[in-house]
Amino acid sequence: MEHHALGHLEVGFDIPARPGMKESEIQTPCLILDLDALENNIRKMGAFIKAHGMRHRLHAKMHKSVDIALLQMELGGACGICCQKVSEAEVFARAGFTDLLISNQVRDPHKIDRLASLPKLGARTIVCLDALDNVAELSAAAYGHETEIECLIEIDCGAGRCGVSEPQQVLELAHAIKGAQGLRFAGLQAYQGSMQHLPDYEQRKAKIDAAVAMVRQCLALLQREEFECDIVGGGGTGSYYFESASGVYNELQCGSYAFMDADYGRILDENGRRIDEGEWQNALFLLTSVMSHVKADRAIVDAGLKVQSVDSGLPVVFGRDDVTYLECSDEHGTIADPAGVLKINERLRLVPGHCDPTCNIHDWYVGVRQGIVECLWPVSARGKAF
Amino acid sequence: MEHHALGHLEVGFDIPARPGMKESEIQTPCLILDLDALENNIRKMGAFIKAHGMRHRLHAKMHKSVDIALLQMELGGACGICCQKVSEAEVFARAGFTDLLISNQVRDPHKIDRLASLPKLGARTIVCLDALDNVAELSAAAYGHETEIECLIEIDCGAGRCGVSEPQQVLELAHAIKGAQGLRFAGLQAYQGSMQHLPDYEQRKAKIDAAVAMVRQCLALLQREEFECDIVGGGGTGSYYFESASGVYNELQCGSYAFMDADYGRILDENGRRIDEGEWQNALFLLTSVMSHVKADRAIVDAGLKVQSVDSGLPVVFGRDDVTYLECSDEHGTIADPAGVLKINERLRLVPGHCDPTCNIHDWYVGVRQGIVECLWPVSARGKAF
Repeated sequence: MEHHALGHLEVGFDIPARPGMKESEIQTPCLILDLDALENNIRKMGAFIKAHGMRHRLHAKMHKSVDIALLQMELGGACGICCQKVSEAEVFARAGFTDLLISNQVRDPHKIDRLASLPKLGARTIVCLDALDNVAELSAAAYGHETEIECLIEIDCGAGRCGVSEPQQVLELAHAIKGAQGLRFAGLQAYQGSMQHLPDYEQRKAKIDAAVAMVRQCLALLQREEFECDIVGGGGTGSYYFESASGVYNELQCGSYAFMDADYGRILDENGRRIDEGEWQNALFLLTSVMSHVKADRAIVDAGLKVQSVDSGLPVVFGRDDVTYLECSDEHGTIADPAGVLKINERLRLVPGHCDPTCNIHDWYVGVRQGIVECLWPVSARGKAF
Repeated sequence: MEHHALGHLEVGFDIPARPGMKESEIQTPCLILDLDALENNIRKMGAFIKAHGMRHRLHAKMHKSVDIALLQMELGGACGICCQKVSEAEVFARAGFTDLLISNQVRDPHKIDRLASLPKLGARTIVCLDALDNVAELSAAAYGHETEIECLIEIDCGAGRCGVSEPQQVLELAHAIKGAQGLRFAGLQAYQGSMQHLPDYEQRKAKIDAAVAMVRQCLALLQREEFECDIVGGGGTGSYYFESASGVYNELQCGSYAFMDADYGRILDENGRRIDEGEWQNALFLLTSVMSHVKADRAIVDAGLKVQSVDSGLPVVFGRDDVTYLECSDEHGTIADPAGVLKINERLRLVPGHCDPTCNIHDWYVGVRQGIVECLWPVSARGKAF
C-alpha cells in the first residue's frame, strides 16, 4: 500500500526517499524519524499515563501526522486527539479519528460553521471557549447543523494567553453553555504552556502547583452547582508527571515527548538530568548534507531557515561533539568543523530547536530503522492553519 | 481559468479565500498581497535596472511563485530567474521558464543527475560551483544526458559562506570548466549576502566596494587568459544600486524588493530614510484575526510560529501605532492593545519579519486590490528544498 501509493512520486522532487534506501541516499534536507526511538517514546508515555489512571489525548498539532497519531492510539493507548485549528481537525476527522478536541478558541463565523459540521464526519467534537459571546455563536451553528459541540472552558492558569482568570467567569460560562441548544458542558481546559520549557524542575513544579490550585478552586465552584467535568485537560512534555499526581486533571495532552527537540531536551528532570538523556529519546532529525567546504574549518550544509524554525535556538548536531551548527541563512547552515573532518555529501542528523513549527514546513517524514528507510509518512495536516 | 481551477477547493480548508471576497472575509491566518504595491515595486525595479543597462535575473527563492515570476518578467522586464535548489528550478522549468540559474552548489549525485536533465525541459541551465571535484561531477552528468550546463564560479566576496576566496582558485576552476565536456564557463557569481540587512547605507556601500574590488581582480585575471564572462551576477534589495554603478556586474538578483518585510524595511537609504518609506512599498502581509480578548489590554491573534519565521524579529502591525505584536507561540500572537480597541474577528495586516522563510510555509497568496480579493496564486515551489 505504502509503496504503491508512492509509485508516481519522484525522489528528489516530490519525496525525499523510498522504502529500502539507505539513510545516506536520502535526499536532503528532510525530516527523518528514528522509528525505534519513536515507538519507545510512545510506549513509555502510554505506560506512564495508564499506570497513573489518566487518559492521553495526544496533541496532533505537534506532528500533524495521521500515521503517527494512529501509532499513539495503538502503541500508546491514547483516547483521542487534540488539534489547534478547525482545518487541522478536519484532516483527522476525514482520516477516521472519532474523538477530537480543538484546544483553542474558534470565533470566525466560517470556521464555526465548519466546526459545527465536524460531528457529521462521525467525530465527537470538543472545543475551548473563554467568552460568553462565543457560547451563542457556537450554539447557533450547532443548532443549524443539528449537531452537538462539547465545550471546555479554558482557564488561564499562568500562561497569560487565552482563557478566563476568575473562577466566577468559569461558572458564568458553564451556566451559559448549559442553557445553549446544541452545546454540552464537558469540563475545563487548563494548559500551562509557558512553564513547559523552564529548565528547572522545581520551578516547573511551582507553576503547575499554582495551576492546580486554580483548577481546584474552579472545580469546587462548579461542583457546588452540580456541574460535572468529563474532561479536566492539560499537561505537556515538561509537566505531565505533575498533572498526573495532582488529583484534579484526568486528561493529558502531551505532544513533543514523541519526537523531542533541542529546546525541550535541555530541560532537567527531578535529578537534574536533561530529559533527552534518559526520559526521552531523540526520534526526530533534520537530515542535512555537506554541500561546500572551501574553508578548511567551516562546512556549509543544505539545511537553513527554509526547513526549520529557529525561534527556540539553532539545531544541534546529533551524536557528534567534533562539529557544531553555528549559523543559519535561508538555504544554508554553517558548521564549525575545526578538524576539517566533514566530507562533501556527508549526512548529519540535526536535532531541530523546536519540533512543532519545524514539522509544519515539511511534506514528509522518512521513517528509518537501523539505517534503512522503512516508510514515508505525509505531514497530513501541514499548513492547515485555518 | 483562475476561478475554474479553484472550483473544487474549499475555503477555510484548502484555500483562504475566493476572488470577489472582501478582505474581512478572508480566512486567516494567510498571506495576502497588495497587488497595487506589488506591481509598483516590480515596475520600479524593472525601470531602475533597465535605466542602468543591467539585466535582472529575479530571485524566485523569495516568493517561489510562478505567477509572480511571470509578473516580474512582463512588468519588470526580467531576463530569467534564480533558484536555490534543483527541485525549485524544476518547478519553474516545468512552468515554461527558459533561463534558470541555480545560484548555489549542487553536489549530491541524484541532484546532479536531475540538474543535468533540466535542459531537456527547454531551459538554459546555469549552476554555481566552488570546488574542482564538482567540475568532474557536473561534466559526467551533462555528458551522460547529452545536455549542457553553464557554470558560474562562485566567489566569497564577504559573506563567508560558499565560494572561493582566492582569484587564483577562480582561474583554476575556469580552466577546469573549459576542459570539461558538457560544461560551459559562463562567468562569476558574486553575491554579498551578509551585508544586505546592515541598516547603515555607508556600511553597506563599504562591503560592496570590497566585493567589487575582488570581482575586478578576478575579472582581470580571467581576461588575461581570454575567459569571457557572460554573467557577473549578484546584488540584492539592500545593494542593487551599488552593483549597478560598479561597472563590473551585469546581472542583478534582487528578490525581497517585490514584497518587503519588517527586517528589510528597517534598513536606511542614502538619505537616512527607511527603505519601506519611499523606496519600496509593503506588498506582503500576514493577515490575522483577533480570536480572544479576555484581558482588557491584550488581544490574542491567530498568527503564531506556524505561519511565519521569526528569525529576523517579530512581525509589525501595519498601519497602526495603537497596537503592537508582542509575543509569539506556536499558534498564537499576543497583541498589546492598551486602549482595548481591538474587536473579536478584527483583521490585522502584519508585516512579517522575514519574507522568504515565511512565504515557504504557506500554500497560497491571496491577491487583494482595494479591499477585494482579485486572485489566488499557489506558492508553486513551496517546500521544494531538495
